[in-house]
Amino acid sequence: MTLWGGCFEGETNERVRQFGDSISFDRRLAAADVRGSMAYAEALHRAGVLTAEELAQLVAGLEGIADEIASGELVVGAGDEDVHSAVERRLTERVGATAGKLHTGRSRNDQVATDLRLYLMGVIPRLREELGGLQEAVVDKAAQHLAVVMPGYTHLQQAQPMLFSHWLMSYFWKLERDANRLLDVEGRIDVCPLGSGAVAGTAYPIDRATLARRLGFSAPSENSLDAVEDRDFVAEMLMWAALLQVHLSTLAETLIVWSSTEFGFIQLADAYATGSSLMPQKRNPDTLELMRGKAGRLIGLAAGFLCTLKGLPSGYNKDLQEDKEALFDSLDTVELEVPLAADLIRTLEIDTDRMARACSDGLLATDLADYLVARGVPFRRSHFLVGQAVLRAEQRGVPLRHLTSAEYAAIAPCFGRDLYKVFDLRRSIAARSARGGTAADAVKAQIDEARRRLSAARRS
Amino acid sequence: MTLWGGCFEGETNERVRQFGDSISFDRRLAAADVRGSMAYAEALHRAGVLTAEELAQLVAGLEGIADEIASGELVVGAGDEDVHSAVERRLTERVGATAGKLHTGRSRNDQVATDLRLYLMGVIPRLREELGGLQEAVVDKAAQHLAVVMPGYTHLQQAQPMLFSHWLMSYFWKLERDANRLLDVEGRIDVCPLGSGAVAGTAYPIDRATLARRLGFSAPSENSLDAVEDRDFVAEMLMWAALLQVHLSTLAETLIVWSSTEFGFIQLADAYATGSSLMPQKRNPDTLELMRGKAGRLIGLAAGFLCTLKGLPSGYNKDLQEDKEALFDSLDTVELEVPLAADLIRTLEIDTDRMARACSDGLLATDLADYLVARGVPFRRSHFLVGQAVLRAEQRGVPLRHLTSAEYAAIAPCFGRDLYKVFDLRRSIAARSARGGTAADAVKAQIDEARRRLSAARRS
Amino acid sequence: MTLWGGCFEGETNERVRQFGDSISFDRRLAAADVRGSMAYAEALHRAGVLTAEELAQLVAGLEGIADEIASGELVVGAGDEDVHSAVERRLTERVGATAGKLHTGRSRNDQVATDLRLYLMGVIPRLREELGGLQEAVVDKAAQHLAVVMPGYTHLQQAQPMLFSHWLMSYFWKLERDANRLLDVEGRIDVCPLGSGAVAGTAYPIDRATLARRLGFSAPSENSLDAVEDRDFVAEMLMWAALLQVHLSTLAETLIVWSSTEFGFIQLADAYATGSSLMPQKRNPDTLELMRGKAGRLIGLAAGFLCTLKGLPSGYNKDLQEDKEALFDSLDTVELEVPLAADLIRTLEIDTDRMARACSDGLLATDLADYLVARGVPFRRSHFLVGQAVLRAEQRGVPLRHLTSAEYAAIAPCFGRDLYKVFDLRRSIAARSARGGTAADAVKAQIDEARRRLSAARRS
Amino acid sequence: MTLWGGCFEGETNERVRQFGDSISFDRRLAAADVRGSMAYAEALHRAGVLTAEELAQLVAGLEGIADEIASGELVVGAGDEDVHSAVERRLTERVGATAGKLHTGRSRNDQVATDLRLYLMGVIPRLREELGGLQEAVVDKAAQHLAVVMPGYTHLQQAQPMLFSHWLMSYFWKLERDANRLLDVEGRIDVCPLGSGAVAGTAYPIDRATLARRLGFSAPSENSLDAVEDRDFVAEMLMWAALLQVHLSTLAETLIVWSSTEFGFIQLADAYATGSSLMPQKRNPDTLELMRGKAGRLIGLAAGFLCTLKGLPSGYNKDLQEDKEALFDSLDTVELEVPLAADLIRTLEIDTDRMARACSDGLLATDLADYLVARGVPFRRSHFLVGQAVLRAEQRGVPLRHLTSAEYAAIAPCFGRDLYKVFDLRRSIAARSARGGTAADAVKAQIDEARRRLSAARRS
Repeated sequence: MTLWGGCFEGETNERVRQFGDSISFDRRLAAADVRGSMAYAEALHRAGVLTAEELAQLVAGLEGIADEIASGELVVGAGDEDVHSAVERRLTERVGATAGKLHTGRSRNDQVATDLRLYLMGVIPRLREELGGLQEAVVDKAAQHLAVVMPGYTHLQQAQPMLFSHWLMSYFWKLERDANRLLDVEGRIDVCPLGSGAVAGTAYPIDRATLARRLGFSAPSENSLDAVEDRDFVAEMLMWAALLQVHLSTLAETLIVWSSTEFGFIQLADAYATGSSLMPQKRNPDTLELMRGKAGRLIGLAAGFLCTLKGLPSGYNKDLQEDKEALFDSLDTVELEVPLAADLIRTLEIDTDRMARACSDGLLATDLADYLVARGVPFRRSHFLVGQAVLRAEQRGVPLRHLTSAEYAAIAPCFGRDLYKVFDLRRSIAARSARGGTAADAVKAQIDEARRRLSAARRS
Repeated sequence: MTLWGGCFEGETNERVRQFGDSISFDRRLAAADVRGSMAYAEALHRAGVLTAEELAQLVAGLEGIADEIASGELVVGAGDEDVHSAVERRLTERVGATAGKLHTGRSRNDQVATDLRLYLMGVIPRLREELGGLQEAVVDKAAQHLAVVMPGYTHLQQAQPMLFSHWLMSYFWKLERDANRLLDVEGRIDVCPLGSGAVAGTAYPIDRATLARRLGFSAPSENSLDAVEDRDFVAEMLMWAALLQVHLSTLAETLIVWSSTEFGFIQLADAYATGSSLMPQKRNPDTLELMRGKAGRLIGLAAGFLCTLKGLPSGYNKDLQEDKEALFDSLDTVELEVPLAADLIRTLEIDTDRMARACSDGLLATDLADYLVARGVPFRRSHFLVGQAVLRAEQRGVPLRHLTSAEYAAIAPCFGRDLYKVFDLRRSIAARSARGGTAADAVKAQIDEARRRLSAARRS
Repeated sequence: MTLWGGCFEGETNERVRQFGDSISFDRRLAAADVRGSMAYAEALHRAGVLTAEELAQLVAGLEGIADEIASGELVVGAGDEDVHSAVERRLTERVGATAGKLHTGRSRNDQVATDLRLYLMGVIPRLREELGGLQEAVVDKAAQHLAVVMPGYTHLQQAQPMLFSHWLMSYFWKLERDANRLLDVEGRIDVCPLGSGAVAGTAYPIDRATLARRLGFSAPSENSLDAVEDRDFVAEMLMWAALLQVHLSTLAETLIVWSSTEFGFIQLADAYATGSSLMPQKRNPDTLELMRGKAGRLIGLAAGFLCTLKGLPSGYNKDLQEDKEALFDSLDTVELEVPLAADLIRTLEIDTDRMARACSDGLLATDLADYLVARGVPFRRSHFLVGQAVLRAEQRGVPLRHLTSAEYAAIAPCFGRDLYKVFDLRRSIAARSARGGTAADAVKAQIDEARRRLSAARRS
Repeated sequence: MTLWGGCFEGETNERVRQFGDSISFDRRLAAADVRGSMAYAEALHRAGVLTAEELAQLVAGLEGIADEIASGELVVGAGDEDVHSAVERRLTERVGATAGKLHTGRSRNDQVATDLRLYLMGVIPRLREELGGLQEAVVDKAAQHLAVVMPGYTHLQQAQPMLFSHWLMSYFWKLERDANRLLDVEGRIDVCPLGSGAVAGTAYPIDRATLARRLGFSAPSENSLDAVEDRDFVAEMLMWAALLQVHLSTLAETLIVWSSTEFGFIQLADAYATGSSLMPQKRNPDTLELMRGKAGRLIGLAAGFLCTLKGLPSGYNKDLQEDKEALFDSLDTVELEVPLAADLIRTLEIDTDRMARACSDGLLATDLADYLVARGVPFRRSHFLVGQAVLRAEQRGVPLRHLTSAEYAAIAPCFGRDLYKVFDLRRSIAARSARGGTAADAVKAQIDEARRRLSAARRS
């Protein structure tokens, strides 16, 4: 039974029902829907539309349905077009005709917008907690491995020596931006559309500010038309998840490369790898590969929904129903994945020996140029002279430190006999002690700052 | 129980299992998987790897599983990582250790690529049939309404008079390109990867050409590495569906605009509309709106999967598992929607009266310019002079035909007294009789050509 | 001449140069680059790397280049790989070898990230101003037309009566969210990467906090690796622009539909329309159509850049060079379009008569249901009964108000003889006076609140 | 001067002009536009609209303009709205009022669709040639290095031994599908819209079949409305380029990983690498990184344009003007990149020694399982037993071949003393001799087949 059949003669085509019904996915809004209805019943009572008795009846009925939802007992049937219809149908079964008063001045347009916002306001604190957990795993791991030296890369080529902890902490800051962005989005979700009716507002004297407050929102929406058609917050959540997922994809890519036999820097715990059905030796970083691959999925969901919104005429349009599956898929992915990433970081085994052995002399070429700078050579010229040394070493097939003083002097007399002191990874690292650098103290300062932020976030 | 645990000590983490398992969606490949396994068992027998007895045992077991799948009896459990594991587990339950021989020289990498192609080769003929059905609905409707005149639009502004049938037939040709594209994609799906092993080919003397033929493929793949990593065909199907959906979205948009009170050109049958929970008078074209909105979804799925493929290193990567949900969602959408569009076209009610009344004199301005051309005025000048007449009529607030001869003559003497003959919609339409034009004969020729193509497609 | 040729023997392939050079588009960063270099020179001086004399020399040289940029004199040549190389080359021409000291401890990796952020911090205040201008145009127009009544739509079907100003104000709030989002993004742009070196930090005692402050940034970045690889802010700007553009696309679509002959609600000023090369009567809303169409472009730019970021390994990668063209194209589009939208709103002509005549009785069906509610009928039942009346009116081909009392009574006795009072558009509108509703007072309150926000934004 | 000002009073707003004008990018259609106009002039003559003299005048004028375009002399000015206006303006300057007759029955709608198709029909043969060149480079390189053995990878983990040539040939087949797809698209481009007018067809007796043939098209379009609004071919080209670019991105990613110090399998020629402005030792694979990164750009262009098309109402809409920039950017990228990829493949240096040394015993685990299969052990059990051996070897920290016979026997007695023969990379490779496998003969057969196809393509 639909909520709207009065002026219809023909039956809904079965394919149409299947195409348009949303009950298969919007049922996860059931608890929010009931909560919204309770607050709305109270508002109708305050507005003089419902008697105290009617209110009590509706609230009791809705509480019963809330219990059914919590226990999984609520049955939604083939006849239920969407979650709102299902709840209204069930309420009618429980309290009779009074149920028909609950929709007074309310439309599914303002109702679903409210439900979706309520739902998200429940999800976001959990997301924030999960993100914080991942950040904590990153910080703890970084704090534990402050002595581990490895090659830093740009262009996947060895660039300069770096602490493993410095590398890891680079992800803390990406996640910190993600956490920030989430706060921003949350602020825009925190607006209550209820009381906007179908499009033009409500004709009943609903106190919308109180209604909003009762549902935990900071404020009611300012324009009824905008209130029912606005899905910016869904688009924002999707874009938020897509960028977070991009971050995870780069973490995954880096670890996949590092877990290759050739790099051998890390090993995933068995719990995070899988084998091959054919090749008995395989330990594949499947989890990481999915983490990388799912970035495509989440980018597609965000772009797809923006495209759905593009060019819609003013007013609620049914196209907006496409918001839910995208949103739920995106958030489910992130909610499964973020704690998993935390576990994975925590259990990651690092082969410090392989990392150390991987460091080539080329990593210290910048230090060699800096050495010349200290001897008064302008940097651009130092850079060129060290480049020449690199070329010479390659031609001879030896590392930079194996070129003799004479060879260096032949390139330029400004190379002194003390140049060999630069071939020391720890010295290079220690030199990068300005804020944000890879020197141990700078990394410790980073970790302290990170912990300060995490605990501030926990307190807020 | 996994297929690969030999070298593993730790247990798989539960979140990892949930994140990586594909059984919830790849189970729809079960029938294809069994079919592929039967053919592979025969190939192993021909290669001397299985005895006739073993082959018989395996085939019997697989046939039993095929029956279980057909009847919905096959139970996949929490322990089944994917459809291949589930089928192998069940086969082991049925025939014991011999089941363990079926995977000889085969990997899930070549197996899943084969399954997915087999699955699509089953779906495509159905898609083609459904598309043909929609094209037929279009042609039939067009053939029935050859007398209906309406405004033709560009920029949603009235442009020139047009037959409704001409408008409708414009969709036939879009769908014809979709049907064509589908044939092209099908040709690239029709390649059998089985016998490519994990990545380097098979070490057993499998006759791959015969194996391919037995599965209904035209040829085996040419390079084992490419065979296991190629998902071009998935990307192509997704892009195919996205473009088809874009076509449907423009059909939907046009009909939505036309079903507004202000246009009033068409009315959806009640079966394709829905009402409002608040506003008793509403008859909303929900079906059309979803048809428009789902273009975003399908474009997102295509773009997202391309993004998943982007930048993968050579070889099978787990990221590819993202192919299935996107593909199934996309095809399910299209399979539900195309027949629905056909129903909707068939039952569409046209208000020929509103269409006729909507036609303004502006539609005939080009004809008026052509009238001047016939009197020797270069077209660019005629265009300008008629523009002046349009402006004059607007200033006076009358239609073009209500300007007097004197007023026309005042604009330019080349306007004759016989100019009023151009204010005839049917004359304008009849004049556009060159191939592809809106004249009734040209549209009939279009319809004939369309029917010829449809019946050729049915025969092939 | 490149900045890095020391260890290279072969020449760069010409196609490679063309493929990789960015000078054609990154030249717009020239002013920011010079500004960043001046601040960096001072920082090097404070760090004891440059003498006061060298600093003066460099600053003078850079000031000269700044003048060349401002006057358009700076010539970038085929040999300049990017804007940084061009500036360094020119500085060398001006001050000789000292120029080679400026790059001490600096990499193009931290330099370009700084330049791009500086550039955006210059663009954003302008964007904010432009957005504010559009919001103002909206508010002013709304304030001027408070008496105009029109149909409100959902599903492009007439829903409930609405003030034109209420419709227009719905865009104010979308733009207000856009303005908010811009503030959020700005906060994350406002971080200074300079002093992060190539990837591991700087080996010179640069005071990064002071350096950041000198460039107008609130703080230096916290991790040198993250600092050089972070392009979140570019992704965020692109997503920001895409969502703003989606809003503009829905405004455009609505106005396109309304400017059709059939709706006839508005007319674009001639300045915003174009004609047809063939059809003399055409006045096409090209500007609006491009506004709608460009949403695709901006969504594509955002999705494309996220896809570029996806799966990159840790560290600066050349892929990031793809950030600029997308960003510039996106912002240029928005900067051209937002003021244009403001002009267009300001000059929009509204046909209040057509709007009024378009209002059908169906718009008041909800009010009729509310009438029954006031007589004690539960809403769901009122809805059904009014639906029956709608159906009856349709069958008779008359508007709702032409059904007789007897006909209403035949549907249900609760319809009283006073029901006809509901057929009054202004009464319906006035009833929707709760916050955010379409009643004139509520809309005035909206406008006041909007003006309050605009002036607060101007003050901040 | 515009082509359409007759009914306009107001001047076009300057921002509107800038926003809407396309001359900055559509000027590259100039040659096609002139060619189309010449053929159209002839068609008008055949239709009796132009006299022989007028035709001669127009053709002479157009030929002159063609020369101006070829020599770069044609000046397009600020007043030229688009390429069609520019050519018409220039023609008027050259031949006077007769120029005004050329547009008889033609609209910019059918004109631009024709121009764009003509343009693409000129580009595609060049693209095909470039693709063929890259395929040839692949085949030649593969043919030269048939003796090179390397690890084959799945999940970036060593999987099975493989010939380098087999790896390289995997790209031949991807490119072959790209070439195939291009043929398919070309077939759908090869349709002539000219003679469709603005939307409803032409009122002049144009022989469209002859006109199409004169322009080198196989057939005229079948429906005038579809003809002017169809941009499927643009969407298809964009999707084609996106998928090609995805292929190139995976090639790039693989080579980037292989050119790391840790893999060290390949070295880019200096001509394809660039250095760092800070680190003197760097040789960065910039070209490859851009190749990877540009996949994002091309995917975004395709998705963005589909989004632009989504939900447009029937008829030509100005939104379609967004087709050109996307198309040109996409094709320019591909045209620069494909020959560059060919150069890069040709000059790639392979470190066969590093490749050989990288091969671990794990690569032969499948062969060890196959050894057990040959001794009658079901494959699934062999897989498990070899997995146990792998685990044992890892625990002892030795390669598989260093486990003693006793250790193997302890795992399972079916391991014989002859098992050590499997530790031979070439034996493993040679075993994979079925079609498509990595055995040298199979790869040679692949190369032969590839050459056969290339020369067939050249002949066609």
